Amino acid sequence: MIELKQISKSKCYEGDQFVFSHHSEVCNCDMTFGIYIPVHEKNEKLRLIWFLSGLTCTHENAMVKSGIQRWASEEKIAVIFPDTSPRGEALPDDDSFDLGQGAGFYVDSTENPWQKNFQMWSYIVDELPNLVLTKFPLDQEKQSIMGHSMGGLGALNIAIRNPEIYKTVSAFAPISNPTKGIWGQKQFEAYLGKETENWKKYDPSILLNEQGYKGKILIDQGTKDDFLKNLMPEALEKIFNNRNNGDQLRYQKDYDHSYFFVSSFLKDHVLWHKDNVK
Amino acid sequence: MIELKQISKSKCYEGDQFVFSHHSEVCNCDMTFGIYIPVHEKNEKLRLIWFLSGLTCTHENAMVKSGIQRWASEEKIAVIFPDTSPRGEALPDDDSFDLGQGAGFYVDSTENPWQKNFQMWSYIVDELPNLVLTKFPLDQEKQSIMGHSMGGLGALNIAIRNPEIYKTVSAFAPISNPTKGIWGQKQFEAYLGKETENWKKYDPSILLNEQGYKGKILIDQGTKDDFLKNLMPEALEKIFNNRNNGDQLRYQKDYDHSYFFVSSFLKDHVLWHKDNVK
Repeated sequence: MIELKQISKSKCYEGDQFVFSHHSEVCNCDMTFGIYIPVHEKNEKLRLIWFLSGLTCTHENAMVKSGIQRWASEEKIAVIFPDTSPRGEALPDDDSFDLGQGAGFYVDSTENPWQKNFQMWSYIVDELPNLVLTKFPLDQEKQSIMGHSMGGLGALNIAIRNPEIYKTVSAFAPISNPTKGIWGQKQFEAYLGKETENWKKYDPSILLNEQGYKGKILIDQGTKDDFLKNLMPEALEKIFNNRNNGDQLRYQKDYDHSYFFVSSFLKDHVLWHKDNVK
Repeated sequence: MIELKQISKSKCYEGDQFVFSHHSEVCNCDMTFGIYIPVHEKNEKLRLIWFLSGLTCTHENAMVKSGIQRWASEEKIAVIFPDTSPRGEALPDDDSFDLGQGAGFYVDSTENPWQKNFQMWSYIVDELPNLVLTKFPLDQEKQSIMGHSMGGLGALNIAIRNPEIYKTVSAFAPISNPTKGIWGQKQFEAYLGKETENWKKYDPSILLNEQGYKGKILIDQGTKDDFLKNLMPEALEKIFNNRNNGDQLRYQKDYDHSYFFVSSFLKDHVLWHKDNVK
């Protein structure tokens, strides 16, 4: 039984913003996550939104910058903020900001030196849910997932491959076609090896095209995002148009890649998840 | 004429979140500030709220963590986020977090090595207003000020001594009686010298008691704030009770000193400023 160690607890919009650490068996290191639990009735089971963060982020960025707790409090939804990679001085890392610690890309690595620790897919999809769903008053039938940039990529992949668990998925400026992009090829080669066939299960444009997704998808993308060429929203846009499933990819005029953009549309996303997770 | 150099511009809740730097003549160095300008009509003059931050903060903390832009956008109010001290490798500093860079205490220093740069009172009250009131569409008759912790101290002192300019003042967990406290005595001795008579003009409990304030004051203080002994809210509470001017000091049960606390009550503060600045 994995033990949770409480790092902090701050009252926030009447609920509680916790930070916990715990040993991760899949990542072979200690991991940290934040979870917001709104005020609720005794025995009430709360909806849960997973928020996956982007490159360079820890569990903390979305937790302190997005302002999601206000809407989570009003709508009575729990929100979990996992870290973006395993961490530690003894763990492998890379000098560049977009590989290694802070840049796990939500994949299960098969290559050295990463594979011993960089098992973020299994951590997010299996280990962490097993831990939090038993420890907190959460309704496992009402889970959805969202993310920003690399976290948007993770959220889309995880939802598409696990539609029974994540009933809806939304993303802010997600990496949309990583097998073809600057943010994707470098990391997939490092984490997954040179065989590009093994990359496909982590590319939401390929996954959605091949296997569909029975839930709904909402994406917001700023038109002044400095990373548009790395994100390639047009790949998903094309598939959305063919899918005809009510998916939305909204280009938000003049918004950039920052949390100023995320926070501006986060209330929309929270309400949309609530409306669409029945 | 001081030039503003634009560091960044991010669209946020339809308005613009800017960061600028400029040479400061009073601080003898470059200074950085953030300013949020909501959508407005041509020729419209906007209300302005000054947000002064606490120990260790730069201009950035409140700007990225408080979520104030949402309410500023809805209520059509500009918000300015100054830095908390002069900065630079060539400038004096101290190893402790509560003195020197990041800890200007909003005073005009008279002592070496600080006095050449640490003129935060004059910067906030004179130099920066002269700069921004001419460059942005602001109504100088509708200014108010707020702050957090050390910034709450600064906001209270600045408003009480300049009631014609700042029509209302609010604070989150302000340092309330610095001439008697751990957060105050050390810094006032360093910045202002050993003569305690010179400290009194920077102590809101003394100022309010001696000269009053014709505007309204709102303070929120968390009951689980780890720094209650340094903040000493009871000093102001006593004066509020005697003043009978509609001032409010609200103890918020179980909230701590973090931005999770600030953001939880910030909408209240913004609406309160708007209601009370006629």
